[in-house]
Amino acid sequence: MDPNIIKKAMEYRRMIDVLMGDNEFADVVLINGNVINTITRESYREDVAIKGKHILGVCNSEGLIGPKTLVIDVSGKYISPGFMDSHMHFESSMLTISEFSRFSIPSGTTTLVADPHEIGNALGPVGMKAMADEAALVPNHVDLVVPALAPDCPMLETAGVDINSKDMEDLLNYKHIIGIGELQGFSNATHVYNNTPEIITDLVASTAYARSIGKTVDGNAPDLFGKELAAHIISTGGTTSCHETTAKAESVEKLRQGVYVFMREGSTQRNMAECIKAITEEKLDSRRAVLATDDMVSEDLEKLGHMNEILKRTIAEGVDPIEAIQMVTINPCTYFGFKDRGALLPGYLADIAIISDLNNMVVDAVFIEGELVAANGEMLIDIPKYTYPNTVKNSVKLSPVKAEDLEIHAEGQSAKVRVIGVIPDQNLSDAGDANLVVKNGVVQPDTKQDVLPIICLERYGRNGNIGKGFVTNFGLSSGAIAESIAHDTHNILVTGTNYKDMALAVNRVIEIGGGIAISNNGRVVNDLPLPVGGLITDELSGHEVSEKIRELEDDASSKLGCKVHAPFMHLSFLGLSTSPKWKITDKGIVDVENFQILSPVFE
Amino acid sequence: MDPNIIKKAMEYRRMIDVLMGDNEFADVVLINGNVINTITRESYREDVAIKGKHILGVCNSEGLIGPKTLVIDVSGKYISPGFMDSHMHFESSMLTISEFSRFSIPSGTTTLVADPHEIGNALGPVGMKAMADEAALVPNHVDLVVPALAPDCPMLETAGVDINSKDMEDLLNYKHIIGIGELQGFSNATHVYNNTPEIITDLVASTAYARSIGKTVDGNAPDLFGKELAAHIISTGGTTSCHETTAKAESVEKLRQGVYVFMREGSTQRNMAECIKAITEEKLDSRRAVLATDDMVSEDLEKLGHMNEILKRTIAEGVDPIEAIQMVTINPCTYFGFKDRGALLPGYLADIAIISDLNNMVVDAVFIEGELVAANGEMLIDIPKYTYPNTVKNSVKLSPVKAEDLEIHAEGQSAKVRVIGVIPDQNLSDAGDANLVVKNGVVQPDTKQDVLPIICLERYGRNGNIGKGFVTNFGLSSGAIAESIAHDTHNILVTGTNYKDMALAVNRVIEIGGGIAISNNGRVVNDLPLPVGGLITDELSGHEVSEKIRELEDDASSKLGCKVHAPFMHLSFLGLSTSPKWKITDKGIVDVENFQILSPVFE
Repeated sequence: MDPNIIKKAMEYRRMIDVLMGDNEFADVVLINGNVINTITRESYREDVAIKGKHILGVCNSEGLIGPKTLVIDVSGKYISPGFMDSHMHFESSMLTISEFSRFSIPSGTTTLVADPHEIGNALGPVGMKAMADEAALVPNHVDLVVPALAPDCPMLETAGVDINSKDMEDLLNYKHIIGIGELQGFSNATHVYNNTPEIITDLVASTAYARSIGKTVDGNAPDLFGKELAAHIISTGGTTSCHETTAKAESVEKLRQGVYVFMREGSTQRNMAECIKAITEEKLDSRRAVLATDDMVSEDLEKLGHMNEILKRTIAEGVDPIEAIQMVTINPCTYFGFKDRGALLPGYLADIAIISDLNNMVVDAVFIEGELVAANGEMLIDIPKYTYPNTVKNSVKLSPVKAEDLEIHAEGQSAKVRVIGVIPDQNLSDAGDANLVVKNGVVQPDTKQDVLPIICLERYGRNGNIGKGFVTNFGLSSGAIAESIAHDTHNILVTGTNYKDMALAVNRVIEIGGGIAISNNGRVVNDLPLPVGGLITDELSGHEVSEKIRELEDDASSKLGCKVHAPFMHLSFLGLSTSPKWKITDKGIVDVENFQILSPVFE
Repeated sequence: MDPNIIKKAMEYRRMIDVLMGDNEFADVVLINGNVINTITRESYREDVAIKGKHILGVCNSEGLIGPKTLVIDVSGKYISPGFMDSHMHFESSMLTISEFSRFSIPSGTTTLVADPHEIGNALGPVGMKAMADEAALVPNHVDLVVPALAPDCPMLETAGVDINSKDMEDLLNYKHIIGIGELQGFSNATHVYNNTPEIITDLVASTAYARSIGKTVDGNAPDLFGKELAAHIISTGGTTSCHETTAKAESVEKLRQGVYVFMREGSTQRNMAECIKAITEEKLDSRRAVLATDDMVSEDLEKLGHMNEILKRTIAEGVDPIEAIQMVTINPCTYFGFKDRGALLPGYLADIAIISDLNNMVVDAVFIEGELVAANGEMLIDIPKYTYPNTVKNSVKLSPVKAEDLEIHAEGQSAKVRVIGVIPDQNLSDAGDANLVVKNGVVQPDTKQDVLPIICLERYGRNGNIGKGFVTNFGLSSGAIAESIAHDTHNILVTGTNYKDMALAVNRVIEIGGGIAISNNGRVVNDLPLPVGGLITDELSGHEVSEKIRELEDDASSKLGCKVHAPFMHLSFLGLSTSPKWKITDKGIVDVENFQILSPVFE
């Protein structure tokens, strides 16, 4: 007989013995608190008894308290199941799972479902498995959902590794990998259907396999309605989710079509306030409403918290606090099929957040699997610093470049060029044009017009592509910024006021094995090495990353004159070939809506 | 690659092609109806498009209707997901699955989860697998949950076959078996814990195994609260159900402890009206409220309908009709992990009930997997009569008995005897005593006092036990009634006004291979053969069974003077050794609360 089954049976037996009074007692009993029941959507005074990792019962504790039982009086506080973030990327924080968890646990988050989409594009299965290996070590529950497709648009860009249905069996049976992540490949349904129908065929092979072994498949359906949404849902092979919902009508539509709407509220995109109107205004049953962050930067985690902050904002939109808590507990647990948490029930894991102020979601203490792991915003246990193996480092396989490699050429004295427009706080971009001076066959950056070169260099040693275009709205007056974060393929992106500083910044990114660099007047001004896949640091703490990012942003603004806040984030999203209008990849300017590559100079 | 996965992927691809307009169209489109959305708890005007077995989409059907598409106008009607009965026993109807389905499908029921608990006790795995074989043939969805333990109380009774954890691997991996059925063995928590702790050890071995392969485990927790309920829940190994909840406070308690409360409303026991108060009065979140019948007799199915009738009664208790429909669709589907039905969603099975009157739950038409299978209360497709193999027949392995075998002996002229009291419409019974005349060492039945012998004969050829006791409240004035339905072990039970007629009735039950018999004045008056396990007929139609039962009940009342309605049902429940106070098994009178066997004569 399977020893795991015997172990489970013995666990049940032992808990039954304690409950039935056979001279055994609870390890911990919380008394005088108000239990939050995420099944019945109520709160009431009751005791919570814990044995080992599990909740024994939420009931009168008479008979369960023995001489060794720790009795904790939580008068005036609420006892809630621990919170869950159902869709997030560690890469957005640039932190390891361990560092991220050190921030998120004290705020009440006990479960994270992460999509290692960026590491997947950069490093493929090797990188995602390395993250799963780390996930197995942290005290909180961390599971991964992996991309079924990389790059998102194989025709238009180059990733570090190509992922498709051939990889699914290997990936989906690896530890801590519970499903397929956001199905971005079919988010732009009509265009994909018309332009790359083979992608759909490959996706359904992946999702059919995933479903056959009971795995989940997350969707990604911005602005899809009616038949297109139905087609997208079917491509996921069953009940799916969407974290790309931005409008109330879209939220209503998706809930009606059975999609779990992961209402997004993170550092970069904040869609919860619109999405939640499906519940607050239209009064829909909220069982498939879920809260998720998608992207959180280190500084926000440190200053604001994690799911507690998202809950607080949701409650401020008029949602009953317990209904809001359902959206980070039982609702997503039902979606993911987590049958051991999301509520305080007999036999469930003792993952608990003790809350002193429900409306402001102030978390006083956190238990994970029966252990008190955090209190008053601080970790009480040590999460060791995690160092990634060399197999996921040195991902930048590019020789140093010269300014000439980056130059954009044209004949004559001037050229009409295509210009990508940064839109602050959005993944979307504008499309425009400008006239630039040409000197000796090289199109000149123009700080007065604010039209600067933007270059994407394939960095994985696959083809040496260099995609070129122009960008406006960063407002740089001197220098250059470069980084190996460039959604979703994460090649090297650089923009600047002159080709020399641009080459300098790129070469520093290459030199540090991936990361962020700023150059100015022929010198490198600052950098942040991100050795894990060029995306994550396993060297700095979360606090140090926050400081470093602030420093880099200050430099960009004070020394280079950058006018966009969070310029590295905005730069990185200019690579995202799935969101309109124009983006830049290693193949050139991508006309997203028409699925084609455009040359930077057109007249 | 697994051909089933390829088939699934091709199905998805084909549906996507239709939705994206690739010259393919829907097979059927329902227009102008009001869709009932069991996710958002709403109803609104929308089209429903079907391709093959699946729902393509619930959306504007423009572009989906081709020259071969059947467009059905359902103006003024409601389009609902098909209903589900989440806990029922075919044995209670005495019908095969095929016959039962012929009644239940036209009333809107498209999924049945049955517990072959009775066949399991009588025939063991062979019998339950034979039922699973039939389940695979009917057009509706029928799945089985099987007992982890038979008999319920091994110390106190003999079943046809002993079932325990050793059988689980074999049973739970058989087709159409989706979990463990009602965990009756631990329903009386304290007594089982104190008297037969080894049963708990065996049960947790079964449930740990079941959970390890993703199967469900139904509970059975009448009158359990607090710690005992928690222990019962833990014994099931996870989220469980209870269909034995009878009071509002119990319903509230179980929902709070995360139990799916299967609010029972069948032919014999009607607990919904009390249980539903947790929703209507206490306003609890109803996501774990479910409606189930447990036991339905053929006549009720024929006259009243099935889940439509239960829905109607639930709505009459003040529940919103769509919330009530959630209790027979998405709620139980979530519990059982059915991911392809319970709502009208893209890619889900096209199991649909068309309803013309929502409050009275009048079902006009029923689709199963896209096929119109019933309309206006009649089946439109043929369900062939199913004949069971001989392996599940001839279950009565008992030689004919003589009156002397049944006699209860005592010394002297009179005896003080223990008397089980029938309580109309309940599984429970009373405990009392009486003084009876003794002639030639034989205690004489007394029709004036209404104290008659009740005898239980082990019928499986295992030990030949004959358990003896007395009973009151049937009110027989002559003759005897016998049957091979005797919960839950289904030995032969007989009661009567004289030992000779009792032997006659028993011998007719033996002769017909199990069933029901009535004798009077030395003659057999009537009988009903139940060849499948002594519990089910595969010879008569549902209508014929209804007629026959009515005839038998009329005979009992008019010819034997029986004063209890449904006497065969009441007699059969006098065998149920898990419900207080006194019952009769092949080992004798069972004192349920004290877990012991009592002699019929005590002074």
